[in-house]
Amino acid sequence: MIEITPVLDSRSNSPLYVQLANYIKQEILSGRIKPNEKLPSKRNLSRYLNLSLNTIQSAYEQLCAEGYVESKPRKGIFVSTFNEEIPSNQIFSQKCEPENEELKVNIKYDFNSGKVDLEHFPYSIWRKLTIQSLYQDKGELFYNGNPQGELLLREQIAKYLFASRGVRCSANQIIIGAGTQVLIGLLSLLIGKDHIYALENPGLHRTRTTLQDLGVHTISTPLDEDGININQLKNSAASVVYVTPSHQFPYGMIMPISRRMELLKWAEGKNGYIIEDDYDGEYRFKGKPIPSLQGLDTKGNVVYLGTFSKSLIPSIRISYMVLPSSLIKKYQESFTVYKQTVSRLHQDTLYRFMNDGHWQSHLNKMRTLYRKKHSTLMVSIQNYFGENAIVVGGNSGLHIVLEVKNSMKEDELISKALNVGVKVYPISIYYHCAKESLSPGVILGFGGLSETEIDIGIRLLKEVWEL
Amino acid sequence: MIEITPVLDSRSNSPLYVQLANYIKQEILSGRIKPNEKLPSKRNLSRYLNLSLNTIQSAYEQLCAEGYVESKPRKGIFVSTFNEEIPSNQIFSQKCEPENEELKVNIKYDFNSGKVDLEHFPYSIWRKLTIQSLYQDKGELFYNGNPQGELLLREQIAKYLFASRGVRCSANQIIIGAGTQVLIGLLSLLIGKDHIYALENPGLHRTRTTLQDLGVHTISTPLDEDGININQLKNSAASVVYVTPSHQFPYGMIMPISRRMELLKWAEGKNGYIIEDDYDGEYRFKGKPIPSLQGLDTKGNVVYLGTFSKSLIPSIRISYMVLPSSLIKKYQESFTVYKQTVSRLHQDTLYRFMNDGHWQSHLNKMRTLYRKKHSTLMVSIQNYFGENAIVVGGNSGLHIVLEVKNSMKEDELISKALNVGVKVYPISIYYHCAKESLSPGVILGFGGLSETEIDIGIRLLKEVWEL
Repeated sequence: MIEITPVLDSRSNSPLYVQLANYIKQEILSGRIKPNEKLPSKRNLSRYLNLSLNTIQSAYEQLCAEGYVESKPRKGIFVSTFNEEIPSNQIFSQKCEPENEELKVNIKYDFNSGKVDLEHFPYSIWRKLTIQSLYQDKGELFYNGNPQGELLLREQIAKYLFASRGVRCSANQIIIGAGTQVLIGLLSLLIGKDHIYALENPGLHRTRTTLQDLGVHTISTPLDEDGININQLKNSAASVVYVTPSHQFPYGMIMPISRRMELLKWAEGKNGYIIEDDYDGEYRFKGKPIPSLQGLDTKGNVVYLGTFSKSLIPSIRISYMVLPSSLIKKYQESFTVYKQTVSRLHQDTLYRFMNDGHWQSHLNKMRTLYRKKHSTLMVSIQNYFGENAIVVGGNSGLHIVLEVKNSMKEDELISKALNVGVKVYPISIYYHCAKESLSPGVILGFGGLSETEIDIGIRLLKEVWEL
Repeated sequence: MIEITPVLDSRSNSPLYVQLANYIKQEILSGRIKPNEKLPSKRNLSRYLNLSLNTIQSAYEQLCAEGYVESKPRKGIFVSTFNEEIPSNQIFSQKCEPENEELKVNIKYDFNSGKVDLEHFPYSIWRKLTIQSLYQDKGELFYNGNPQGELLLREQIAKYLFASRGVRCSANQIIIGAGTQVLIGLLSLLIGKDHIYALENPGLHRTRTTLQDLGVHTISTPLDEDGININQLKNSAASVVYVTPSHQFPYGMIMPISRRMELLKWAEGKNGYIIEDDYDGEYRFKGKPIPSLQGLDTKGNVVYLGTFSKSLIPSIRISYMVLPSSLIKKYQESFTVYKQTVSRLHQDTLYRFMNDGHWQSHLNKMRTLYRKKHSTLMVSIQNYFGENAIVVGGNSGLHIVLEVKNSMKEDELISKALNVGVKVYPISIYYHCAKESLSPGVILGFGGLSETEIDIGIRLLKEVWEL
């Protein structure tokens, strides 16, 4: 009988059978116990080590399950033969990289366009409803739900979209997803690879990257003062176009009705699609929100994308798309294999939030709030910069583009600002090629700053930009 | 002056200026007010309609913003000319499909392998921690977090993986995502399109579909009794392989150490990758969980995939992957443009759950529970079916394959079962080509059923399957 004399620690957190199995494993790995050798019988080893038969049994089963040993009926337990050599030092050799935490600069005034006002988020209501979701549907909400998203939430979204955005759809046309990038991925599968996609240039870089990473053929189409240049689009081979008509990103123009009608006619003629990303269409500072392309579409050529990231909270990750009937049919036939990516619990909480009317009050409150911040921003820019800066795209949304009339380039504007704790953002990354960006300017988001902070931030910029 | 005589309702929810703007818009769309016509001056219309100047001003601004009219300095407001004809009936014409709700058969005993036991989910603890997440971090958690996932959660996962699965990694190597499909999508970008992927056949169909939809070149590799057939793999052009070594899906074999070592050597030689999907590795019914391929890997060729869907709750949508240093480097250089898809709130709650030790107790409890259910299933099958059925892959995980020795084919087995309210699941969908499936059999998951339900379900199957 081969000798097995482990040092076992009965006070260890690790059960004795695990310690024993590990010991034998090491003996095998190190070559001290050879392939094809017979292990002691359970009874013998139990007596020898003064351990219960159960412990030995469990250890042997473990070794057996891991393939280190094999049980041969009526013969005993034998060490397996391996086709490949097992490195004895395998266990501690793989190098692990240390965690790289981002260097934090001391930023006091962050004009990040992705930030929203959380001071006024209705925490107590959201908590109450979260708890309701957790209590009232014991179990059910913890299973996987409809891959398209919860019906109750989709119904609320359809109702809201009709009332506020002029989008006409049933809940059946809506697909919920964990962010626009996830939905764009699914959408590109539904639309198929035969289409060429025209993208606004400059435009949202995350969408461009996502589509390109997916292997979609994309082309860049420049803007004019009404949004995407329709003539360039018509002259291209594209049959799908991705646009941000409510508030072009980043330049902020609102696409007028005439351009919308032209786009729709183009899509109909091409038998293609318009992807309308209404990422912050809830916030307009003049008049009420203008009707969406989806609402004007009579032929089923428009896909409408929306999100709760700007209007509610970013980190909850709930976006949605409204598909025309041709695409929703395709989805339901072939793509429900993709599981829903948004937590069902959050979907339920959001449903309750909308159903109880909190969503509408929240939006109303935020509209007033952002209108004030927007107005402060405009006044501060006028006061401090005067004629030395031009605001572009300031009629809606949570950011503006600021064209600065000094000799500084974009990176200089940004780094000078950073020196006084103010973070402003580049436009160049939204261009297909960074060097295309013409007039020097930066993006200023104001959703996450208070009115006072906005004013101080702009004043600091005046100083470092020497305006 | 053209005549504008709307019927306005001062008790309506819609502000007067909105009603007025909508009325003028309809007049323009219907052609009653023609392009290039001049609208009444604000002052005149204000007097004429007996409305405040503000109301008229807002209505005109709205029409202007939507592009229906244009303001010409010192001349007045004119109706725009449109390049495209606007359909006057556009607003109510797009067809909306009715909601198709799935037909529900009356299923009493659902042997769904995706279901887990929710009776024993620690609701009160989870609620308490959710509320803690909501209260203690006012604001912060509502912003977008680290695209890789929250560091605190990743640290907990790294700790757990080391202790329980033999996975050696730092939090820095972990990427969190809303389900395996999302992570596979990202992973295929990191690995790149130059590789051919070998997939287990039969194997998880969602992974196969996801990779194929992404345009990845995949090949099917058959199984032998130890898992994926290594010789077939070696003879193929593949340099990436996707495997489920802890509990092959669907057949349930556990890959022994010798095959694991061969696979690792293969990957090293190919300079390729092994994607190890440990989808239910937490549950083994003999010995403790066996070490992962990742833990045996010394060369950085293994990507480890894990999920909380089976071990905690499916609908929360938290999965993760552990990348070797070459891939995590690539991710951090070029792919953080992809936003994190899991709610930050859920990540924080799960972190608390793990940090406070609830995760380990939950796992221990569930292991005992599933062991009992598993044992009941085995006993019931033995009692009712005797020699007429064979259980395959019953050593671990939350499902087994049942090969039934009667003359019925898969679809007949399933439909007969359905007649008595029992739902069992096909194997054929996991094959690359459905007709490859040889012996007639079905998949039985037992996680979501009680012991009594399991026993009754199997008894009912005996009757309808005439065993």
